[in-house]
Amino acid sequence: MSNYSSLKVAIVGASGYAGAELAAILSRHPYISDVVYAARALVGKKVAAEFPALRGCVEAVFVKPDPKLFAECDAVFYATPHAVAMHDAEEILATDTVLIDLSPDFRLRDMAVFQSWYGAHAAPALVPKAVYGLTEVVRADIKNTSLIACPGCLATAVELALIPLVADGLIDGQVVADVKTGVSGAGKRTERAELLFAEQSENFKIYAADGHRHQPEIEQAIADFGGQMPPLVFRPHLLPTTRGIYATIYAPIKQGADCAASLQKYWRDEIFIDVLDDTIPELAQVVRTNRVQLHARPINDTTALIIAALDNLQKGAAGQAVQNMNVRFGLPEAAGLFGARNLR
Amino acid sequence: MSNYSSLKVAIVGASGYAGAELAAILSRHPYISDVVYAARALVGKKVAAEFPALRGCVEAVFVKPDPKLFAECDAVFYATPHAVAMHDAEEILATDTVLIDLSPDFRLRDMAVFQSWYGAHAAPALVPKAVYGLTEVVRADIKNTSLIACPGCLATAVELALIPLVADGLIDGQVVADVKTGVSGAGKRTERAELLFAEQSENFKIYAADGHRHQPEIEQAIADFGGQMPPLVFRPHLLPTTRGIYATIYAPIKQGADCAASLQKYWRDEIFIDVLDDTIPELAQVVRTNRVQLHARPINDTTALIIAALDNLQKGAAGQAVQNMNVRFGLPEAAGLFGARNLR
Amino acid sequence: MSNYSSLKVAIVGASGYAGAELAAILSRHPYISDVVYAARALVGKKVAAEFPALRGCVEAVFVKPDPKLFAECDAVFYATPHAVAMHDAEEILATDTVLIDLSPDFRLRDMAVFQSWYGAHAAPALVPKAVYGLTEVVRADIKNTSLIACPGCLATAVELALIPLVADGLIDGQVVADVKTGVSGAGKRTERAELLFAEQSENFKIYAADGHRHQPEIEQAIADFGGQMPPLVFRPHLLPTTRGIYATIYAPIKQGADCAASLQKYWRDEIFIDVLDDTIPELAQVVRTNRVQLHARPINDTTALIIAALDNLQKGAAGQAVQNMNVRFGLPEAAGLFGARNLR
Amino acid sequence: MSNYSSLKVAIVGASGYAGAELAAILSRHPYISDVVYAARALVGKKVAAEFPALRGCVEAVFVKPDPKLFAECDAVFYATPHAVAMHDAEEILATDTVLIDLSPDFRLRDMAVFQSWYGAHAAPALVPKAVYGLTEVVRADIKNTSLIACPGCLATAVELALIPLVADGLIDGQVVADVKTGVSGAGKRTERAELLFAEQSENFKIYAADGHRHQPEIEQAIADFGGQMPPLVFRPHLLPTTRGIYATIYAPIKQGADCAASLQKYWRDEIFIDVLDDTIPELAQVVRTNRVQLHARPINDTTALIIAALDNLQKGAAGQAVQNMNVRFGLPEAAGLFGARNLR
Repeated sequence: MSNYSSLKVAIVGASGYAGAELAAILSRHPYISDVVYAARALVGKKVAAEFPALRGCVEAVFVKPDPKLFAECDAVFYATPHAVAMHDAEEILATDTVLIDLSPDFRLRDMAVFQSWYGAHAAPALVPKAVYGLTEVVRADIKNTSLIACPGCLATAVELALIPLVADGLIDGQVVADVKTGVSGAGKRTERAELLFAEQSENFKIYAADGHRHQPEIEQAIADFGGQMPPLVFRPHLLPTTRGIYATIYAPIKQGADCAASLQKYWRDEIFIDVLDDTIPELAQVVRTNRVQLHARPINDTTALIIAALDNLQKGAAGQAVQNMNVRFGLPEAAGLFGARNLR
Repeated sequence: MSNYSSLKVAIVGASGYAGAELAAILSRHPYISDVVYAARALVGKKVAAEFPALRGCVEAVFVKPDPKLFAECDAVFYATPHAVAMHDAEEILATDTVLIDLSPDFRLRDMAVFQSWYGAHAAPALVPKAVYGLTEVVRADIKNTSLIACPGCLATAVELALIPLVADGLIDGQVVADVKTGVSGAGKRTERAELLFAEQSENFKIYAADGHRHQPEIEQAIADFGGQMPPLVFRPHLLPTTRGIYATIYAPIKQGADCAASLQKYWRDEIFIDVLDDTIPELAQVVRTNRVQLHARPINDTTALIIAALDNLQKGAAGQAVQNMNVRFGLPEAAGLFGARNLR
Repeated sequence: MSNYSSLKVAIVGASGYAGAELAAILSRHPYISDVVYAARALVGKKVAAEFPALRGCVEAVFVKPDPKLFAECDAVFYATPHAVAMHDAEEILATDTVLIDLSPDFRLRDMAVFQSWYGAHAAPALVPKAVYGLTEVVRADIKNTSLIACPGCLATAVELALIPLVADGLIDGQVVADVKTGVSGAGKRTERAELLFAEQSENFKIYAADGHRHQPEIEQAIADFGGQMPPLVFRPHLLPTTRGIYATIYAPIKQGADCAASLQKYWRDEIFIDVLDDTIPELAQVVRTNRVQLHARPINDTTALIIAALDNLQKGAAGQAVQNMNVRFGLPEAAGLFGARNLR
Repeated sequence: MSNYSSLKVAIVGASGYAGAELAAILSRHPYISDVVYAARALVGKKVAAEFPALRGCVEAVFVKPDPKLFAECDAVFYATPHAVAMHDAEEILATDTVLIDLSPDFRLRDMAVFQSWYGAHAAPALVPKAVYGLTEVVRADIKNTSLIACPGCLATAVELALIPLVADGLIDGQVVADVKTGVSGAGKRTERAELLFAEQSENFKIYAADGHRHQPEIEQAIADFGGQMPPLVFRPHLLPTTRGIYATIYAPIKQGADCAASLQKYWRDEIFIDVLDDTIPELAQVVRTNRVQLHARPINDTTALIIAALDNLQKGAAGQAVQNMNVRFGLPEAAGLFGARNLR
């Protein structure tokens, strides 16, 4: 095990978009001394040949994912589809290595709900050990766990917007979250024709019109960290952008509720959450950073508008995973990350 | 006055996006024999020099807008910002020329509401003569008017989605319309830096977070054609696309309400409205046509999802204006337009 | 066999981009009475379910490609990758059906060259029967053939730009053609990650840096229709656009050569070729039409700049194929197509 | 004057794209202690209100540009259009402040050439004092000057590609540089309709078809740093991207010339120049970094293909300006910049 100021880490699934983002972040992270890049499809290829932006910075070669290799790592990131990390977790957790999972495998506590969206779980006994890694609300727990389940990208946006309002008891009825996301969230190695440039440029549509698998995760997290979860309608749409999540939330509120003040109260000291008073969030201001922009304003006496904007590959995936690593190992929370407000 | 199978028309504001779309449609319209192109900023320039796609098709030169010129036209289209048509209307209506106004000047009957969004009206006495040109619900009236106020682009989408549901009494509470629009809706001759490619590519944001001036128009139209208008929350967003409006509507409904059936019942015979049962609307399927795609499905027992997709410059502006002209002059309704379902 | 004013045709490969473009064109073509849609991957699916824009217009279902089915068609379009049409050609040509091939199978006469780029040819005996379908220079031959080999998209652009200059003997040395193309040219049903929106948006790169397989086709066509082919450097690049080909050609010319006059002389009466004098071609003016924009100007005494812009799926594929069909069957050449200059 | 490890700098023209990029770079630069933001149009506005990404990081307010203010700065960056810096230069150079000019004012030594592209020069006596800041070839001079004229964005790409080949005597005739650039190069505060999203998305065209004002700058720099300048044809095109320059260069070469080896020889130790052997440059790999990708390969015995890719706002403007500042003040050359290869 390394000294905490010089960590050795591994990335599994380094060939996907979240994995590539991790590779980029970790290659410039001041407290990382060594990275193992594992990607089944790329074994033997030079990392810098797959990601030419890392030429001259990374000399490593992709290796086959193998929990044995990670025993000497301080942490291993699983940037894989669902149903990969859950097969390796037991072996990894038997060592001193911290497992930081970007996949949904360890997010949901209710195994019936998990199964309805993702199929049977291979390691249900480990689920209770996982800390749901919405950094800002679980720092103490993260410091004492070896299994961090990083939130979904869409979920992160909705949760950070709603937890304060729920915790302050401002919400009074069914919330509508109309969410828009860039296409990188759907992954890279795919044969889905709808993700082709020629399909997506100048296009826009809803997806998961029947409901999205991040919904139970949102409901669990808001109940955990806010309190009584209100009914939620949550529908994502596909933007013709590479990155970004923009959640427009319409919430019925109690008379006189001040949602903006609630957001400020909860998040004002957070370096990666920027609550805007007189400016509207926009994707261009958060993409390629770990920053979240939030904004709330009344629409009428009983309805509030709350907006959250973030980068799905940063705060929605690799960025938050690294933020969690920083917290877990006692590093400066913004180490290696962009967009910190540097206020503390 | 020409024979109806060979109309002479004029376009005022031919230099903007809606004007250019009109120019393109009219240049290939089988019942148009002559077009006068008026644009203050382009007087003397060849139309085909401004719109090279019309080279070899249009030999005309831009003229100065002047109601006198339009006396010999069967119809004149005003594709201008607000507060232009209202100054010329009286002079035009004194002739036999039909005024088809794409601007908001004659949409709102309540002059106080008009004034709050657009300033004082110059010709309030003419407002009651105008027919609000949402073609599918006002054909009979259009045939007997000389002043057609074409609906706003955002308004058209929301109205076509909601009129049937309101008319059938299915809605039971405050409706949320989260609407996304391409940037051409904001016009061409502008100095708004936010419309630059470098600002908009890979970006997304809400605009009119405080409310949009199409809201009173929507409320008036739904009350006129549907009945009791429910409370409406209506917020538009700016998409990184050139064209298209995508309205995602969340409506509280009475138990058992079948919104899809309602849409089908009202629109099934409409050539430019396609109610989709098992397919999701997407912008790429409607842009550059006059077609509207609608879709409705239940979210839960008391909430429905209704989606409308259309092209803001076609059904949202120039296309619907020509559709209205076709109706007014007894031409085939789809003449010169794309996207008709050819079902009647 | 149908009356020529009411043709029955088939499309093989209707699931790809060129096939979809053909489907759209033929669905509104005034002389087409019936279309058979064949696509191996979509057998049994409704055409309008695959292409929702055709809902209400096309009731057909995809069938399995089978030359037997096409015997009763006037023409069959092969919008397939290479090495499909050449296997079916003999059976089709044994009937009265005209084979209009959008693939490269019958473009090259030199079988050794063909083999070096595409592999062995399955029907070399048929190759001499094919007419290379660059419409503007082969109308007489098209009228008398049953096998039309439509030019490649990149090739069409370069050939139309250079044939007049070569024919007039203006070129004096090695020509450089720096060509840029939208991504739809690479096809739809693909697993090439580089075609994903997330890879292509805000990106640009050369492809085929070692040379492209359209080069021998260009050299053959210019030799056939222009005369002595000069040395050619031809390199395509991938644009972050869905459609469009933009060829920037740098040609060494003889002192005093007037390239613009040469283009005008050859193409001035062509309805689908627009030689621009004082306007610069741009993709936005040609996409979604069958029109080609050309422009030439001197750079210095011995170098000319020649530009060609067209839509790869229209004049570069489906549009030119239909133009050829129109010529073959004596229909108006612009029937069903957009962008005609209507000058004759 | 500050200690060199803690510089105070100013930005004039902070409202434009290059100015904004400078603001972003300098806000995270480890050796900058203070930044003065000057922008005529934004006086009194908070910098973080104009650039919300800097909220929480920058507390400053825009001030009026005034050379007097800069006397206490170590360096002042002019990110202005041409004909601004030349009016202030004398006053600035009378102090100890280093003037780093991103505009063309001090790039060209030949005043007649300057005048033909930009109009009369206001301070011709200062021009000989300026060092043309193509960092990699002028480090020694930069260390001893107070007036750095940063190269144009297009010029930087072509110069880095050609200087080695000219210096090694490999070129034998007229070079063609077909260059493509993103739209941010044209600036932000503009009324040019062609820069609107709705004009540029899915579009592509040549601009400056008659020649571009960076040509004399390229010719001067290659003569200065390479030797005998060959004839050059240089034509830029406008890409539908926000950032990036991609130069495709076709060079006649002497038999046996090895251009790739020449590039490697000159640039192999440069941290911001990456000469690719077996990988093709693409914009996505360089945008938002100060890195340049170069690649060369033979096309035939007498023609080479050379490609250069860079970010117009980074290595093409603000990045190179900061790189020059770093060199001038003895800081680590990569301080505050992304994309360094970290090889030395």
